[in-house]
Amino acid sequence: MIRLVGLDPGLRRTGWGVLEVAGSRLRPVACGVVAAPERGSLARRLEALYGALEEVLRAFEPVEAAVEETVVNRNPATSLKLGQARGVALLAAARAGIEVHEYAARRIKQAVTGTGGASKEQVWRMVQVLLPGIPIPNGDAADALAAALCHAHHRSSLAAFAGGRR
Amino acid sequence: MIRLVGLDPGLRRTGWGVLEVAGSRLRPVACGVVAAPERGSLARRLEALYGALEEVLRAFEPVEAAVEETVVNRNPATSLKLGQARGVALLAAARAGIEVHEYAARRIKQAVTGTGGASKEQVWRMVQVLLPGIPIPNGDAADALAAALCHAHHRSSLAAFAGGRR
Repeated sequence: MIRLVGLDPGLRRTGWGVLEVAGSRLRPVACGVVAAPERGSLARRLEALYGALEEVLRAFEPVEAAVEETVVNRNPATSLKLGQARGVALLAAARAGIEVHEYAARRIKQAVTGTGGASKEQVWRMVQVLLPGIPIPNGDAADALAAALCHAHHRSSLAAFAGGRR
Repeated sequence: MIRLVGLDPGLRRTGWGVLEVAGSRLRPVACGVVAAPERGSLARRLEALYGALEEVLRAFEPVEAAVEETVVNRNPATSLKLGQARGVALLAAARAGIEVHEYAARRIKQAVTGTGGASKEQVWRMVQVLLPGIPIPNGDAADALAAALCHAHHRSSLAAFAGGRR
């Protein structure tokens, strides 16, 4: 049995979701959102985000992480802000000794809903169906669990390729 | 006497420069570039960048940091990559207990060369003139020292506004 964490980084809110994988069985452990304070310098906000993620990772001890790949069809200012939060989230995982896997948004949606063009609401609904047993409070937590689900589905093939294409 | 550090974040190379300020006197202490490995996962590269910056900050113990404000006139993919490195650099400073100040690129160029539209080469040349005594190996280290210089010039007025507009 191992634990995976999915992360959906954002400066104001970063979604997270932890799954347990035992063979082909998946069990949701916990999910939620860590919120950085809306005020204060950017550096302090990033520090708060990092600290909150560090606590989640320490509490649930996942050994692998999944995160959506860079979305580039946005404006540069948004991409820069998202990048700063994303860098901090990836760093928190790396410094916790967690291997981070990145998946394209379409691939995550496909893994969860069967279609790469699913809406955020469709993803949330399907994640609740696929992972009954814990309440999923919002779309960011659902997106994080969706990334973890996608990774759970692909990790055996990834393991076969370890050190190769990735 | 206090020490300031300027940072010029980038995923492949992050410039840094440390100044000593005693009254109106400025003395360059050291500068350089920390380079993240070109290979490996993004998370591991960010971890290496963070670790290298952490060492620099530990070695020179600056108490305030200056960094160029977000440049948004780039494409989203570039902005996202820059953002990830920038988030990690800001975090390294914040977690070292260093107060981070951000300055617009034009303001930094103006402080160093007298004109907001100066080229990277002009900035490098003027930083070498203004801070003799240490070799400045490249433009990224020069940009970092330029940010520190700009902060040194403005910090007394910033101190007066502390807790106010910023």
